[in-house]
Amino acid sequence: MFEQIKSAVTRLESYANKTPVLSSSTLNKMLGAEIYFKCENFQKIGAFKFRGAFNCISQLTEQEKQRGIIAFSSGNHAQAVALVGKMLGIKTTIVMPNNAPKIKLAATKGYGAEVVIYDVQTEIREDITGKIQEKYGYTLIAPFDNYHVIAGQATAAYELHQKVSGLTKLLAPCGGGGLLSGCAIATKGLNPDCEVIGIEPANADDATQSFNTGKLVSIPNPNTIADGTRTTSLGKVTFPLIQEYVDAMKTVSEEDIIQAVQFHLLRMKIVVEPSGALGLAALLSKSIAINSKEKIGVIISGGNIDPSTLIQMLEMSQ
Amino acid sequence: MFEQIKSAVTRLESYANKTPVLSSSTLNKMLGAEIYFKCENFQKIGAFKFRGAFNCISQLTEQEKQRGIIAFSSGNHAQAVALVGKMLGIKTTIVMPNNAPKIKLAATKGYGAEVVIYDVQTEIREDITGKIQEKYGYTLIAPFDNYHVIAGQATAAYELHQKVSGLTKLLAPCGGGGLLSGCAIATKGLNPDCEVIGIEPANADDATQSFNTGKLVSIPNPNTIADGTRTTSLGKVTFPLIQEYVDAMKTVSEEDIIQAVQFHLLRMKIVVEPSGALGLAALLSKSIAINSKEKIGVIISGGNIDPSTLIQMLEMSQ
Repeated sequence: MFEQIKSAVTRLESYANKTPVLSSSTLNKMLGAEIYFKCENFQKIGAFKFRGAFNCISQLTEQEKQRGIIAFSSGNHAQAVALVGKMLGIKTTIVMPNNAPKIKLAATKGYGAEVVIYDVQTEIREDITGKIQEKYGYTLIAPFDNYHVIAGQATAAYELHQKVSGLTKLLAPCGGGGLLSGCAIATKGLNPDCEVIGIEPANADDATQSFNTGKLVSIPNPNTIADGTRTTSLGKVTFPLIQEYVDAMKTVSEEDIIQAVQFHLLRMKIVVEPSGALGLAALLSKSIAINSKEKIGVIISGGNIDPSTLIQMLEMSQ
Repeated sequence: MFEQIKSAVTRLESYANKTPVLSSSTLNKMLGAEIYFKCENFQKIGAFKFRGAFNCISQLTEQEKQRGIIAFSSGNHAQAVALVGKMLGIKTTIVMPNNAPKIKLAATKGYGAEVVIYDVQTEIREDITGKIQEKYGYTLIAPFDNYHVIAGQATAAYELHQKVSGLTKLLAPCGGGGLLSGCAIATKGLNPDCEVIGIEPANADDATQSFNTGKLVSIPNPNTIADGTRTTSLGKVTFPLIQEYVDAMKTVSEEDIIQAVQFHLLRMKIVVEPSGALGLAALLSKSIAINSKEKIGVIISGGNIDPSTLIQMLEMSQ
């Protein structure tokens, strides 16, 4: 798998943004440690999802590319697949719920994808997608449970370790587990002494429960502001990888997440979506014990937050 | 003067943040050019002012350092002087108006500076400052009209040219002209073919008028959202430097500035204060003619924006 990640690094070389690594002297002083943020909020489409989508789609056969691709998502994966489809000249269909935010609908259409809307009350997205797939022979691009997608997401951690050597811990948010499992494998390949910790909202702690019990736990419709982690469970591919390569799972409260988004915004001057702020939330809330002089890497997964949510968070900061 | 800038680069080496240079593929596509943003919103205290303050204060004599320093400012300069005073163990006094934002007052006190409040209705800050200076022998740290301050600010452009070669234009905001004049001198020293353009709000276009007429023009209390450019005029030092090294001055409307702050925030995921967004405002509003394949550097001066102003701007974007 580590070899696949190295290939992904090469494959993404001239397509993905080499996102910067930022630090905050204020935060480092507060925590008595060095914290390095890998800023995937500056990635294409505003989130790490571009890496996995590109790595996966660019490896399709010529025939598959000619037939077209399909994905179902109301979030960053939709935009990532749509953009990669456009970049590679592949016909792309995205199945989105009728309650998807207008801004994301517009962005997906803006990348030239055909959008199929389904009624969340009466239809099941897998059924809709299956029917379209069958009819046109499109290839489904899974959001996380796919080795090529995982290898793509892993390149975020790979780049961070290349830039900052000697990290003692790496924190990554966990939704479906594509980012976390990939980053864990990259970390153990490059710096085996670095502890990898997955962070989840306490309100959506299915992966933490699965990790601790060894059984795949599902939480339907988890109620968290961190929309990127609202997946109901880990996948068949990501769960065993997380069991093998991740050292611990930690949870944070909704208040911790809001505080972290505010700190990113007002102190670090960067826009981070709630799911992307899970790492900082764990550090600020002391969910993770930090030894002095530790060097901790944190993956900021994305920055796609609705202006109205951003306004709410700013109002809460006053 | 270019030699002084090179000394400043060395002097700031282990103290200032080497701020990242960011690009936006969306913007580059929109403009048909490559735009490189030097992000001084990620500088210590959230603005370029740290550079000038550090370069100036660290060169004081031992005696001057022991007596202490003083500055008057309600903005980023106050925080910069306060932080440098703290870093170098120098007693620091900041004279601030009684209508200064609480958040900036708290930040300045947080850096350990003594804050003297004056009544903007009945007192003149220069008089208050003069009296305290006389009594205690403090050295006044000027916000822009000082060669050491200018050489410090210049290092922002110096770093940008070192990172991105072959820039065809450099855009910098202009308030008192410390940043603009310094960046112009650094640019002409490193890349003489690069055109340097200063950007001002149309509502505070004193420097543009001065530049075009050759006479120092003052605008008392200019009405602009870009608070960093509300200085009434260029200084005795900065005006002739700007006449010599700057190629053109351009203005932007308040609407242009708001649009640029929104673009930085929602598309580029970075928090930029209105003064810091002047360069992008000039590009988005087509105030500057761009040839295709140009490489344009833009100095983002800072990211210190009140949450309430940020909320206003977000509400206007919806």
